[in-house]
Amino acid sequence: MQRTPSFRNVSAAHKRIAGRVHETPLLSSATLSKLAGVEVSFKCENLQKSGSFKYRGALNAVLALPAAVRKLGVATHSSGNHGAALAAVAQRFNIPATLVVPNTASAFKQDNIRRYDGRIVHCGKTLKSREQKLAEVLADTGATYIPPYDHFDVIAGQGTCALEILNATAEVDEIWLPVGGGGLAAGTVLATSDPAMTHQDVQVVGVEPALAGEAQVALQTHRRQPPMPPISIADGLRAPLGHLNFKILDTYQLPVHLVSEQEIMDAQSLAMSCLKLVLEPSSAVPLAALLKYGRWCSASRSVVVILTGGNVQMRL
Amino acid sequence: MQRTPSFRNVSAAHKRIAGRVHETPLLSSATLSKLAGVEVSFKCENLQKSGSFKYRGALNAVLALPAAVRKLGVATHSSGNHGAALAAVAQRFNIPATLVVPNTASAFKQDNIRRYDGRIVHCGKTLKSREQKLAEVLADTGATYIPPYDHFDVIAGQGTCALEILNATAEVDEIWLPVGGGGLAAGTVLATSDPAMTHQDVQVVGVEPALAGEAQVALQTHRRQPPMPPISIADGLRAPLGHLNFKILDTYQLPVHLVSEQEIMDAQSLAMSCLKLVLEPSSAVPLAALLKYGRWCSASRSVVVILTGGNVQMRL
Repeated sequence: MQRTPSFRNVSAAHKRIAGRVHETPLLSSATLSKLAGVEVSFKCENLQKSGSFKYRGALNAVLALPAAVRKLGVATHSSGNHGAALAAVAQRFNIPATLVVPNTASAFKQDNIRRYDGRIVHCGKTLKSREQKLAEVLADTGATYIPPYDHFDVIAGQGTCALEILNATAEVDEIWLPVGGGGLAAGTVLATSDPAMTHQDVQVVGVEPALAGEAQVALQTHRRQPPMPPISIADGLRAPLGHLNFKILDTYQLPVHLVSEQEIMDAQSLAMSCLKLVLEPSSAVPLAALLKYGRWCSASRSVVVILTGGNVQMRL
Repeated sequence: MQRTPSFRNVSAAHKRIAGRVHETPLLSSATLSKLAGVEVSFKCENLQKSGSFKYRGALNAVLALPAAVRKLGVATHSSGNHGAALAAVAQRFNIPATLVVPNTASAFKQDNIRRYDGRIVHCGKTLKSREQKLAEVLADTGATYIPPYDHFDVIAGQGTCALEILNATAEVDEIWLPVGGGGLAAGTVLATSDPAMTHQDVQVVGVEPALAGEAQVALQTHRRQPPMPPISIADGLRAPLGHLNFKILDTYQLPVHLVSEQEIMDAQSLAMSCLKLVLEPSSAVPLAALLKYGRWCSASRSVVVILTGGNVQMRL
C-alpha cells in the first residue's frame, strides 16, 4: 500500500528544492484576458530547468534518496519531459541517469535527454518490452526507478509550483492545469489544501484533450480507466491517471474539461503570438479550455494557468 | 539643434513609466552559458507590452506630451515594433494613432498594429512617398510625430530597460544588444553613465548583422553612413543610426560586432530551444555574437543580453 502525500509533504518539498529550481515568472497578456473574458495570468514552467515542471518532482525524488542509494544512479522509462528532467537532475548531482526509450522515439526527444548526458537504452514499442528493459537496467546498475507521476515524492515536488503561485500573489481564485498521469494535478490539489491557510478556497480545474479524456471518465465513475489510443498531439497527456494520483483527485472531486485537437493547436498558436513563449501542445490545453469556458467563471475571478512545458521543435 | 538626453533623462523616464510597463524577467540557461563560455542572462523584452522594448520609448514620448497635444493623437511611419508599440500606447491613453505603412508590408505586421486599434494609412515603397503621406496625416489630424529612434524622449525611454537590469542584479559587467537606428544602444549607454554610481564600469557592446553593418563603419570613421540595402533577415536593424543616436554612441566609442545571416538564424533557433522564448531574428543578433566572441570576455565576466522583441510569425 503506497503512502499518500499531504500538504505537509508539498511544503517540505518546497523547502528541500528551494534555490535549486527557477522561481518561474507569472506573466499576463491583456489580449488573452480579453479573449478569455476573465483575468488570466500564466505560471511559466516552460521556463523551468529542463523545460518543464517535471524538474520539480524529479529533483524532490532524487533529494529524498539516501546518499548511498542516490550514488548508484536513477532510471526511468519516459522519453518525454520526465526523462529530460531526471537526466538534468542527475547531471546536477553527478550521478548516472538511464532512460529506457522506445527505438521509435523522435530524434528531438532523444537529443533533449542527451543534452543532459542521460544514457539512453532502447526498448521495443510495447509496455512489456519497456518494463523488461527497465528491470534489467535496475538489476544491472542498482539505480533507483523514479516513475513519472505515480510516486509520493514526485507528486509532492510538482505541488511546489502551486505553492510558488500562492506565495507570489493573493490574486488567484482558480488554477487551471493539464491532466495526464495526474502528478501536477494531484500536487496542486495538495498545495491548495493547507489546513492553516485560506488557500483552501482556491479551486483547481483540470483539462484534458478529448482524445485522451480518460481522467474525466475516471473521476466521474470513481474508477481508474485504461489509457485511450495514444493519438492526441498533446503527447504529454496520453497516460492514464496513476493510482496515487487518482486517489487524491477523486477525493478532491477535480472538475475536468475536454478540448479538441483543433482547439489545442489554436491555443498554442495564440499563446505563442501573445505571450512570446514556446509551448508544447500539452501546455496549451488549459488555455484552450479557458478560451472556451472562461466566460463561465465569474468575472471577478482571477485564473492562473500553469504552462507546463516548452520542449517542442519549432520551425522558423 | 536637437537636445541630447543624459542619464538624468533616463532616470526621469524610469520614474515616469514605472508601473505602466512590465518589469520583464532576467532568465538564464546553463546550456547557453556553457556554449558562450561566459555567464549569460537574458533581459526578456520580447515579453514587454506590445512584444518589444519599443513600448518603453513610445510610452515615455507620449507621456512627455502636454495633455492638449496628446489628445490630438500620435503618428509614425514604422510598420514594425515601434508602430505596434505606439499603437498600444495610444490605445492605453484612448487617443488615435495613425501608422503610415508601405502597402507592401506583411499582413502579419499590419495585423499586429490593428490588434491595438492603430489606424493604418498606406503609402508607396519609397522614402519620399512615406514622408509625404506622414506630413499629410500630421496636417490633417494635428497628431504629433513620434519617430522610432532619433528622438530625445524615445532614447531616454529605451534606456529604462538597462536601469531595470542594473537595479535587479549586481552581476553585470557587460550588456550586449542589437544596433539598428540606435535608440536602445544610446539609451543603454546613458543608463550606465550615472555619475553617482559604479555602473559606469558596465560595458555596453553593440551587434549588427554584417548585411546591415553601417553602424560599425560610422563609429569607426566618426561619420554617419547611408543605409545598406534592406536585405538582412534582422528586419528591425536595417535602419542607419539616427543623428542623436550617432552622437551619443560615437562619444561613448561603442564597440560593434558583426554576425552573418546564418549565425543569426542558428542563434534564434538555439535560443528558442534553450530559453523557450519566441524571438524575432533581430532579437537573436547579440546572442549570435556572444556565441562567436563570448570566449574573449574574461571568464569572470557576467553578460546580460537584451532580447529585444518577439513579434514574428511562428509555424508549429
